[in-house]
Amino acid sequence: MRVDVLFRWADLDPQEAEGRVVVVIDVLRATSMIAALLKAGAKEIWPVKEVEEARSLAAELGGALLAGERGGVPPDGFDMGNSPREVDPERVQGMPVVLTTTNGTSAIERALRADALLTAALVNTGAVVESLLASDVQRLLIVCAGTQGAFSLDDALCAGGIVSGLCAAVQSELSDSAMAARFLYESQRDKLLGALRSCRHGKVLESLGMGGDIEWAAKVDSIDLVPVRAKDPRGCRIVAARRGERLVDVGR
Amino acid sequence: MRVDVLFRWADLDPQEAEGRVVVVIDVLRATSMIAALLKAGAKEIWPVKEVEEARSLAAELGGALLAGERGGVPPDGFDMGNSPREVDPERVQGMPVVLTTTNGTSAIERALRADALLTAALVNTGAVVESLLASDVQRLLIVCAGTQGAFSLDDALCAGGIVSGLCAAVQSELSDSAMAARFLYESQRDKLLGALRSCRHGKVLESLGMGGDIEWAAKVDSIDLVPVRAKDPRGCRIVAARRGERLVDVGR
Repeated sequence: MRVDVLFRWADLDPQEAEGRVVVVIDVLRATSMIAALLKAGAKEIWPVKEVEEARSLAAELGGALLAGERGGVPPDGFDMGNSPREVDPERVQGMPVVLTTTNGTSAIERALRADALLTAALVNTGAVVESLLASDVQRLLIVCAGTQGAFSLDDALCAGGIVSGLCAAVQSELSDSAMAARFLYESQRDKLLGALRSCRHGKVLESLGMGGDIEWAAKVDSIDLVPVRAKDPRGCRIVAARRGERLVDVGR
Repeated sequence: MRVDVLFRWADLDPQEAEGRVVVVIDVLRATSMIAALLKAGAKEIWPVKEVEEARSLAAELGGALLAGERGGVPPDGFDMGNSPREVDPERVQGMPVVLTTTNGTSAIERALRADALLTAALVNTGAVVESLLASDVQRLLIVCAGTQGAFSLDDALCAGGIVSGLCAAVQSELSDSAMAARFLYESQRDKLLGALRSCRHGKVLESLGMGGDIEWAAKVDSIDLVPVRAKDPRGCRIVAARRGERLVDVGR
C-alpha cells in the first residue's frame, strides 16, 4: 500500500483526492464527534462548512438535528455543540445529524472526489486500519484537518497511528510525511493524553472548560466503527461501517 | 523563547518573517553545502533561485565561483555541483560562491525580511543552537525547505534537532509543529543515517550515485560554524559566524 499524509486541509488539492481512498482526521473534535454520534445510534452525519448551510440542509432533510461549533461553542438554535462527551443516545438514536465545525468539515469538503472517504480519530483508529486492510487499498491519502490553517499535533498523531497500524500488517511504501507521522505516533503512543493536552487546540479547549473532551478523544480504540461516506446526490452523507468491513461494500 | 516550525518553504508568507529570527533548513543538500563551503574557507555564499541569475551575479561580483544543481546535477559551465563532499578547499578558499539549488534557495528567498537569517543542517545544528541561545532570541521561526513542494523528512529531523537543543537549555513555548519536530528528532536521533537514506530525497540521491552525500549530511555537529546573512545592498550574502557568536554582532 502507498501511503501519504497531508498535515493541513488546505494542502489538499481537491483533484488529488481522485482515484484514492482518503481518510480525514480532526481529532479535536470533528471526527471524534462523528464517531461519537454514530456510536450513539445516529442514522447518518451530514458534515457541512457553513452555519447557514447546516440550517437549510437540516430543514431540507426534515427534522435533522443540528450539531457543531464556531469558536468552540454551538451557534444559536443548534441542538448540540461539538462535544463528543455530551452526545445523548436517546436524542440522536435513528436521527440524521447535520454537523458544522471550523476545520474538520473543510477537510471533508476538499476530499469529496475520493474513491472512498472515511473519517478517523484516535477513538477509532484500529477499526479504520482494519477496514483499510480488508479493502486492499492501493493508494491511501490521510488528510489532517489542522487547526486554523496550521499543523495540529493531535491530527498528526492520529495519522501516525493509522500508518503504524498498517505497517504492522502489510508492506507499505510511505511518503516522508507518512514516515514522520509514524515515528511521531510510535514515540508518543504511551503519552497521548499529555500530548493532546499540550497542543494548541487542547489548550483552547481547556480554557473553554472543555478539557473533558480531550480525555474522551485520547481513548484509543474505544469505538469500534468506521464512518464512511455513502454516495448521495443530496451531499456528503456519512454512515457507520463495521470494523473490518470492506469499503466497497458500503453503499447504504 | 517562542518557537515555530514550517515544513515547506511555500508555507512561509514572506511578511511572516518580519520581526523574527529565521533558520532555513535544506539538509539534502543546500544548507549542508553552505556549511561545507564556509568550512572550506569560502569568503561568502550568495544563494539565488535561478541559474541565469546565478551566472549574472557571479559576473557582477567579478570571478565568483558558480555552484549548484538542477535535477541533482550542475548546470552547464558551473564550477561545481551541490555535493558538500566534493568541495575543494584549495579552490574555494577566500572566494565568493554563488549557489543555486531547487528547494533550498527558494526557502532563503522567502525569508529575506527576517531580522536575522541563518541556515542550518544536521552538520551544524549544535553551533546554530548555541548562537540562538547566545542571542536571546524571542521569536524563532524554523523553515524547512521541503522537497518539490512536499514535506521532507531530513529537514524536519534537523528542525527537531534545533528545537530539542533549545529546550534542553531554556524554557520554550513550542507550536504544535515544533513539538512534533522535537518528538520526531528525539525518536530518531540514534538512527539519523537510516532515516535520511529512507526518505524520498535520499533515495533520489542514491539513484544518482550520490549516496555518499547522505552519509556526509548525517554527521551531526561535524561543523562548528553558523552561516548568517550579512546585510548587503547587492543581495543575500551569507558569511560564517563562530559557534555561540551573538547574531547581532554579525554584520560583516
